[in-house]
Amino acid sequence: MSVGYNVAVVGATGAVGEEMLKILAQRDFPVKNLRAIASERSEGKVVEFKEEKIKVENLASASFKNVDIALFSAGASVSREFSPKFASEGAVVVDNSSAFRMDRDVPLVVPEVNPHAVEKHKGIIANPNCSTIQLVVAINPIHKRAKIKRMVISTFQSVSGTGRDAIIELKEQTKNYLEKRPLEKKVYPHQIAFNLLPHIGKFLPSGYTEEEMKLVNETRKIMEDPAIKVTATCVRVPVFISHSETVTIETEIFLSVDEVREILSRAEGVILQDDPQNNIYPLPVEAAGKDEVFVGRIRKDESAPNSINMWVVSDNLRKGAALNTIQIAELLIKKGLV
Amino acid sequence: MSVGYNVAVVGATGAVGEEMLKILAQRDFPVKNLRAIASERSEGKVVEFKEEKIKVENLASASFKNVDIALFSAGASVSREFSPKFASEGAVVVDNSSAFRMDRDVPLVVPEVNPHAVEKHKGIIANPNCSTIQLVVAINPIHKRAKIKRMVISTFQSVSGTGRDAIIELKEQTKNYLEKRPLEKKVYPHQIAFNLLPHIGKFLPSGYTEEEMKLVNETRKIMEDPAIKVTATCVRVPVFISHSETVTIETEIFLSVDEVREILSRAEGVILQDDPQNNIYPLPVEAAGKDEVFVGRIRKDESAPNSINMWVVSDNLRKGAALNTIQIAELLIKKGLV
Repeated sequence: MSVGYNVAVVGATGAVGEEMLKILAQRDFPVKNLRAIASERSEGKVVEFKEEKIKVENLASASFKNVDIALFSAGASVSREFSPKFASEGAVVVDNSSAFRMDRDVPLVVPEVNPHAVEKHKGIIANPNCSTIQLVVAINPIHKRAKIKRMVISTFQSVSGTGRDAIIELKEQTKNYLEKRPLEKKVYPHQIAFNLLPHIGKFLPSGYTEEEMKLVNETRKIMEDPAIKVTATCVRVPVFISHSETVTIETEIFLSVDEVREILSRAEGVILQDDPQNNIYPLPVEAAGKDEVFVGRIRKDESAPNSINMWVVSDNLRKGAALNTIQIAELLIKKGLV
Repeated sequence: MSVGYNVAVVGATGAVGEEMLKILAQRDFPVKNLRAIASERSEGKVVEFKEEKIKVENLASASFKNVDIALFSAGASVSREFSPKFASEGAVVVDNSSAFRMDRDVPLVVPEVNPHAVEKHKGIIANPNCSTIQLVVAINPIHKRAKIKRMVISTFQSVSGTGRDAIIELKEQTKNYLEKRPLEKKVYPHQIAFNLLPHIGKFLPSGYTEEEMKLVNETRKIMEDPAIKVTATCVRVPVFISHSETVTIETEIFLSVDEVREILSRAEGVILQDDPQNNIYPLPVEAAGKDEVFVGRIRKDESAPNSINMWVVSDNLRKGAALNTIQIAELLIKKGLV
């Protein structure tokens, strides 16, 4: 018997699904059999995994049986309908949608932060939102040392977070703008080329967007501290890959800038890039394609006691989505939970 | 005698200088004679003012005499050398550089906020930095009603703030990126196309940039309140025109979101754009070419008492530079100070 797992990637033709296939191969994930599943629209398409060509199955008619690990990235409504079906046939589902994240019975996991949480899974484990993952990887080591009381966050989020159509829209609009042709808007309500949209996800009655509230609620759940106060403004920027965040962190205990640097230089999954005099600080184009969360521009915030400013950048398709999902699956294997 | 003033625009061929000529014409500024002055490089070039073509003079050899109002936008070192020369010959200089902004003897003026300050001028009046102007126009009405204690600011600043070369660099890099050709970097230390640079102005030993400290220091001077606490992160974004800012404002006195909306709806120079359910919020591409400061996304910040979040956008070349400079000149005329 070959060592390995039967893995299904659901949403295999999307921006995150494609990244999942790449990362499974790169990390030599112990795959016995790989199935690529997507919506009817993608049926018959072919995706690549290692040297192999895999025919994409239609989710509506696909079998849920004989899957050990199902990696979902197909949107919340698809997950809500199909994740339980795979789980009830014995698969462990790691779901990248928002469907189950705040469900009390579903662990919400970032392996660097709360690996123990996977142990309580009942068939489904949720992968947090992209902007939350990179945030908690960067701040958890600070929280452990100095207890975070409050954070003020502004995000600069790339279009790949919206999906493949948004990548195309940014490219097309940019080209048309430069050639002085009219711009077409299909994905976003306003032009995204050379513009900024302070609008990610639906608006709630409070005036916040769903995306902004994910940063508040998911952070508290993952860090298992409902007392952490978070306020956020999420902005879509004309960048293809990587989300960036300004984070102002107020802690219970004072930390010097040097201490923060020292903590982050040893933190799992973090790369410190903080040498501004030599123009070294995290950049979205450099973080793209990398696994880590990059932190720089660490400064004492003189406007409040025990407060620190920093700049956090990470590839939203990798650590923000596909990579974290696969790291959760690896954790399940390591702990013998699958 | 025709009613009007002898006006010199110094830096007339730059991005801001060009905007000044446009705005002087649009507002029918009482110009008797207009001189366009720039560096040697631009000597002999021709600029347009109303229907007239004006030959650009070389600053190094230009006369300083017979000028009533000199509008400077040619960088700090040029201002430091030449502003006093124009002033000593009787001109009132309104200077858009950072040279004199924090000088105790030089008023730093935003007409909507501290118009009285012009009265103390000794020949030179400073125009604040672009990101400061739009901030104080938006927050001063709130400060007057509820006293601002602290602000946390992140900026999303367009390349036109750097100047004409940066506009060209963004265009060229974008074109080359889309055509998969190598990118040339001349203005910025890193790629700006489809990227973000958390780096505006020089880095200081504290880790802050000069741009970030302008928001701290200029805000206090203009609002005449050294107790206001400000912390900022300034980020360059691939947008041509308009700066955008997320602003978290903590006040002494509680204000509801409705009260803030009501205050801003009546504020001079502000346009409230805050109907997120209908996708109405300030956008850089829509603010470009407009005179006002646009404010939206007003929300209660639940992470601190008496705290409000908002999103502030304005054309950095107009209100952030050329327009405010000319409004100062108009104020001087109105008050009989020129």
